[in-house]
Amino acid sequence: MSEPALSAVKAALKSQRIETPSWAYGNSGTRFKVFAQPGVPRTPEEKLDDAARVQEHTGVAPVVALHIPWDKVDDYAALAAHAKERGLTLGAVNANVFQDDDYKLGSVAHPDAAVRRKALGHLLECVDIMDATGSRDLKLWFADGTNYPGQDDIRSRQDRLAEALGAVYERLGEGQRMLLEYKLFEPSFYSTDVPDWGTAYAHCLKLGEKAQVVVDTGHHAPGTNIEFIVATLLREGKLGGFDFNSRFYADDDLMAGAADPFQLFRIMYEVVRGGGHGPGSDIAFMLDQCHNIEPKIPAIIRSVMNVQEATAKALLVDGEALAAAQHSGDVLAANGALMDAFHTDVRPLLAVVREEMGLDPDPMGAYARSGWARKITEERKGGRQAGWGA
Amino acid sequence: MSEPALSAVKAALKSQRIETPSWAYGNSGTRFKVFAQPGVPRTPEEKLDDAARVQEHTGVAPVVALHIPWDKVDDYAALAAHAKERGLTLGAVNANVFQDDDYKLGSVAHPDAAVRRKALGHLLECVDIMDATGSRDLKLWFADGTNYPGQDDIRSRQDRLAEALGAVYERLGEGQRMLLEYKLFEPSFYSTDVPDWGTAYAHCLKLGEKAQVVVDTGHHAPGTNIEFIVATLLREGKLGGFDFNSRFYADDDLMAGAADPFQLFRIMYEVVRGGGHGPGSDIAFMLDQCHNIEPKIPAIIRSVMNVQEATAKALLVDGEALAAAQHSGDVLAANGALMDAFHTDVRPLLAVVREEMGLDPDPMGAYARSGWARKITEERKGGRQAGWGA
Amino acid sequence: MSEPALSAVKAALKSQRIETPSWAYGNSGTRFKVFAQPGVPRTPEEKLDDAARVQEHTGVAPVVALHIPWDKVDDYAALAAHAKERGLTLGAVNANVFQDDDYKLGSVAHPDAAVRRKALGHLLECVDIMDATGSRDLKLWFADGTNYPGQDDIRSRQDRLAEALGAVYERLGEGQRMLLEYKLFEPSFYSTDVPDWGTAYAHCLKLGEKAQVVVDTGHHAPGTNIEFIVATLLREGKLGGFDFNSRFYADDDLMAGAADPFQLFRIMYEVVRGGGHGPGSDIAFMLDQCHNIEPKIPAIIRSVMNVQEATAKALLVDGEALAAAQHSGDVLAANGALMDAFHTDVRPLLAVVREEMGLDPDPMGAYARSGWARKITEERKGGRQAGWGA
Amino acid sequence: MSEPALSAVKAALKSQRIETPSWAYGNSGTRFKVFAQPGVPRTPEEKLDDAARVQEHTGVAPVVALHIPWDKVDDYAALAAHAKERGLTLGAVNANVFQDDDYKLGSVAHPDAAVRRKALGHLLECVDIMDATGSRDLKLWFADGTNYPGQDDIRSRQDRLAEALGAVYERLGEGQRMLLEYKLFEPSFYSTDVPDWGTAYAHCLKLGEKAQVVVDTGHHAPGTNIEFIVATLLREGKLGGFDFNSRFYADDDLMAGAADPFQLFRIMYEVVRGGGHGPGSDIAFMLDQCHNIEPKIPAIIRSVMNVQEATAKALLVDGEALAAAQHSGDVLAANGALMDAFHTDVRPLLAVVREEMGLDPDPMGAYARSGWARKITEERKGGRQAGWGA
Repeated sequence: MSEPALSAVKAALKSQRIETPSWAYGNSGTRFKVFAQPGVPRTPEEKLDDAARVQEHTGVAPVVALHIPWDKVDDYAALAAHAKERGLTLGAVNANVFQDDDYKLGSVAHPDAAVRRKALGHLLECVDIMDATGSRDLKLWFADGTNYPGQDDIRSRQDRLAEALGAVYERLGEGQRMLLEYKLFEPSFYSTDVPDWGTAYAHCLKLGEKAQVVVDTGHHAPGTNIEFIVATLLREGKLGGFDFNSRFYADDDLMAGAADPFQLFRIMYEVVRGGGHGPGSDIAFMLDQCHNIEPKIPAIIRSVMNVQEATAKALLVDGEALAAAQHSGDVLAANGALMDAFHTDVRPLLAVVREEMGLDPDPMGAYARSGWARKITEERKGGRQAGWGA
Repeated sequence: MSEPALSAVKAALKSQRIETPSWAYGNSGTRFKVFAQPGVPRTPEEKLDDAARVQEHTGVAPVVALHIPWDKVDDYAALAAHAKERGLTLGAVNANVFQDDDYKLGSVAHPDAAVRRKALGHLLECVDIMDATGSRDLKLWFADGTNYPGQDDIRSRQDRLAEALGAVYERLGEGQRMLLEYKLFEPSFYSTDVPDWGTAYAHCLKLGEKAQVVVDTGHHAPGTNIEFIVATLLREGKLGGFDFNSRFYADDDLMAGAADPFQLFRIMYEVVRGGGHGPGSDIAFMLDQCHNIEPKIPAIIRSVMNVQEATAKALLVDGEALAAAQHSGDVLAANGALMDAFHTDVRPLLAVVREEMGLDPDPMGAYARSGWARKITEERKGGRQAGWGA
Repeated sequence: MSEPALSAVKAALKSQRIETPSWAYGNSGTRFKVFAQPGVPRTPEEKLDDAARVQEHTGVAPVVALHIPWDKVDDYAALAAHAKERGLTLGAVNANVFQDDDYKLGSVAHPDAAVRRKALGHLLECVDIMDATGSRDLKLWFADGTNYPGQDDIRSRQDRLAEALGAVYERLGEGQRMLLEYKLFEPSFYSTDVPDWGTAYAHCLKLGEKAQVVVDTGHHAPGTNIEFIVATLLREGKLGGFDFNSRFYADDDLMAGAADPFQLFRIMYEVVRGGGHGPGSDIAFMLDQCHNIEPKIPAIIRSVMNVQEATAKALLVDGEALAAAQHSGDVLAANGALMDAFHTDVRPLLAVVREEMGLDPDPMGAYARSGWARKITEERKGGRQAGWGA
Repeated sequence: MSEPALSAVKAALKSQRIETPSWAYGNSGTRFKVFAQPGVPRTPEEKLDDAARVQEHTGVAPVVALHIPWDKVDDYAALAAHAKERGLTLGAVNANVFQDDDYKLGSVAHPDAAVRRKALGHLLECVDIMDATGSRDLKLWFADGTNYPGQDDIRSRQDRLAEALGAVYERLGEGQRMLLEYKLFEPSFYSTDVPDWGTAYAHCLKLGEKAQVVVDTGHHAPGTNIEFIVATLLREGKLGGFDFNSRFYADDDLMAGAADPFQLFRIMYEVVRGGGHGPGSDIAFMLDQCHNIEPKIPAIIRSVMNVQEATAKALLVDGEALAAAQHSGDVLAANGALMDAFHTDVRPLLAVVREEMGLDPDPMGAYARSGWARKITEERKGGRQAGWGA
């Protein structure tokens, strides 16, 4: 690779921005058990303190997504200031319309108009919070759906969903966006109201350009070619962002890149190919994970590094060789051009990038040596640990 | 059920139209083996002769879909006349751009413009044939895709596909439609150019109202809620038709209703619910199956009956009771209202319907007694049996 | 069907025994939310009170499975007496080695011997409880596994598992059995230590005849032919029982028969075919479900009825016609013989069976009319509702 | 890594033996189309000529599996001599009891005893061929199964299968083995008679130590953890070999390592961990692939290289660091130890290994430069190209 090309790759890696989720710093688990961990934050501020460690050691994770009401505070400007003091900004506001008892049969698609109004009120409140925090993105994931055939009318639920989305869209201010997430199943086990990218896309298309689709890498049916969806949404101008995580079975929410690093590379290749990476793009690269059994901060550092490595490999693809092989129909050479980049060990390159950014080349080691884990274990006694239901 | 309501159900069942595929009368198989069967048609005319048996015994299958070039003839008007003499009309024209050696790396999305031109020429020829046969629908299924990551550029293939679809769309005459089919995989094993309903929908939306999506019930990822897609496409006005068949694993192409009769019922319920059944609707209800080991004509009769039974059950759903339970959030009652219809044995009702139509109440028995199987086994000696590759 | 044959079917249906799980009467949910329901039991005794309602209205559910420690009491003999007074007996004892903080990385397969000892101690305690309750079956489900490749050594975990199973097996008394359950995934998301029937079978084979495999219908990979496993385990003499429930996606734990009634019928057909139903068989027919959004008691009644209906259809299969068609290779006739039974509406037959048993022919209606739901809602105030984590 | 450790890794890589399948040198395709390629062999001898190219450039593929009747010759000793002259030996004999018209409803599990006898005769003939070729392994894959519920009796088919396997087992000579392959589905679409490892294991266990299970990496349900099966079979002493290939969806038969190189690495890690690699092991590492659209010889070279790379990474795992992290329950460190090896670019190491073996370090380039592709394209005119059905 030529020196200018290598410089461009390094510049691209340095300018990457990965958004970490406040809730991943708290406790999480499965329906069977939440295993509490020592030192877990009790407040949104402590979550930001932990996120600042991730940013300190990686240099590419300066944005933190919020989840309302889990991160509800009285003074969002103060929270933003707390973030800023630690070199962070507040990212996407994630609405939660699935944990109130009223939402047993849904939120914005609930058969009862009163529940729908309540849910809509929460969504609008989230936009108010965005105004206060300066967040650009409202991220909408709906647990809405049904467990049994016949339980509710699939089509009417779409009508109700569309109505709520329209009302929220109208409320969005200048520079604000709505990111609509889809998910095949869970917690609904028969029908889900936004189960696939097609449904999210159809709604976003009608809403307008501020409405964009977000791809959670764990939310698809087995066998789904996710990078195809990424390429297609980019082509349509409707890819708003990612929720990265990985899975072997369902929505396992493991660390990004842990289950299928080749898939993550292919996704990042399509992002780069489609112009979704770099200064001109406004795609949000977010993590959305559950660190049920591993310590949270280093797990998030590892996840950020995994996304970086996949990105580095994607940037290293020899586009000319690839295109030439594709145009000539040379299947093995074209596949080989892509695989060459994947097989490359990019860890030395990323170590150099980090050093040029003034960082320790070994984020995992640096965090381990920092003593932060011991510190929070000792200091964060008492109070109530943050968790999914906190 | 009240007498007027029952009459309406019977009228709906009598007016149902199921389109059978010419190719299902010929030999088919897996990549491992095609088992030839005695008496299989050698010509498109003989396929129509067999299709006439299905119509004779069921009364609801008067339309036969063609596959070009498998059903290529010199004189399509003569073929249409042959059909008409047997009480049949010619239905959808299915294009084939996957069996010529040139199509090894694709057809309309092929990297080589010459191959794309050839494929487009075939599609336009199919519209010519529609003009001659009076067919309303051009059904497009593309085997296009790639087997290996990097093999070709996913996004460029979409551009090429869009260009071809646009050219075909322009060629459509008054009253003609383009039905775009999607399929997750096979014969492409890494990426498929129209893998899901979202992709088909996005293309059809841009093309215009003559472009509609067709749902093949065997073309989805495991766990996909097909009736949700049906409800959504109906809501969007973009459901053009069905290719019915059933599957346990992949695109198994078993008889419709054989693998999951409850799913077929749920699909037909959403069709009825969404106004897709009856006089006002122009949705094409087609079969697309492979009878690899069972005799073809009775297998098609059985499939038609299975679709009829699912439709009858869907029509028997007590809509008022269902809606009341749904509105009140009574999960068990709502599910129960749907299940009541499913658990009903509708075979006696369909026997009555058939008798009122002047048919034998037992189509399978009537066919067995007709002697047709013996007749074609004896008469159709020599020549080359029709098959997928014929 | 001849009168003697019909009588035999009715007798078989009357003698059916379905075991309901104590935990299904308590609250449950997903990792996102547990929606509490009014009137839910606070104690094991109240769970039995509810189970008695199911038995009262169905007549075939006189056995209740326990879950330890969820159903821990000081005096198990008293609990058994409480059951007996209500016409119930206590069934399988389900061990729980997944909800203590020590079990974050596993129980009997944990890398730390101290944790393994603790887990084994619990399993042995469960056998003590069986001695006290007179339960025949110890049901073992292990959440053990790993979330990340490399996290632990797959093979060593098998060694540890085998050691623990051996120790428990030795402890079993006369007439006691160990039922080993397998599950593909959740809560472990990379490897599970007993992921499939093959693994459970291999362990049980080495342990001896008191060790049997239990099939949970929701614990398989997509596309798995469960009835094949049932037929195979019956042929091997290693089918100990079922955990019935249904699923569309993963381990959804919906009501048995709700998602795929045809599959439940096929399973029950193989049970009948393999001699697993009736007096000579000791297979345990258990439910294991979560009624997250529907009221629990009627949901369990409905589930029992669904299993009954599937069983009735399986018993109605014309075995002679089926065998004749199978032997002659008549695919459509053989399939038709099976489908004839499935299409039959067996609800009238079951109504007769119930009336002959002195029951209301309509269990759902009878329960609704009984006022029990209102009564427990009013009376069960205060205290702590039972739930998965209770 | 220490010098002695590195030497051991290199020695292990040099001694690796990968068996290539004769049929992968011939034409293959999907049920939709077989695309013929220029220069494809017409005879078993020409297949061996091509296999010799793979061995010449990789040095680790000196064994070629046969498929009977596709590789039927009059004089197997002469065929073995032809192989020997080219530095090859003949490997597993693959029986074919799925392509004769008699096998429409099965072979050894067919309801008709005459068909079963014919199938058994073929299997015994294959052992005769093994005697002549000196092959150690008889590989058995059965297409047997059913397409429709009820079509045949699942349990009776197991009885018939067991009987045939027993007869073949009895015929095996000293040093000969039977490798039993399982496959979830295709060409049977409802039930398959050997669908999973559990079924194959149960049969092999009863047969005896000469009967071993073979794992085809493309024959599992979605989400199956294949390396778990590998570890389990190794622990049970029942892993006979592999059929390597890769898949995104079903049994796609793509090049090994092409779809999920991380999975292939995990499999090879369990092989190494379980003592399945190296001098003391008799596991057969076979390829079983279809090169439908890519040129066959270089595709096989690439596949061999992919298996080598996965093996090299598996050999590089720092076992001590891994075990230490596992024992201490350090999830991230344990995962990290495994990933370190996976992220390593082993291509330079393999280049050194090849040079030390006297080979070109770049097998793909060496083959391209050899002119063999042009030579066979020019010379192999006329005749009938080999293919799956040849």
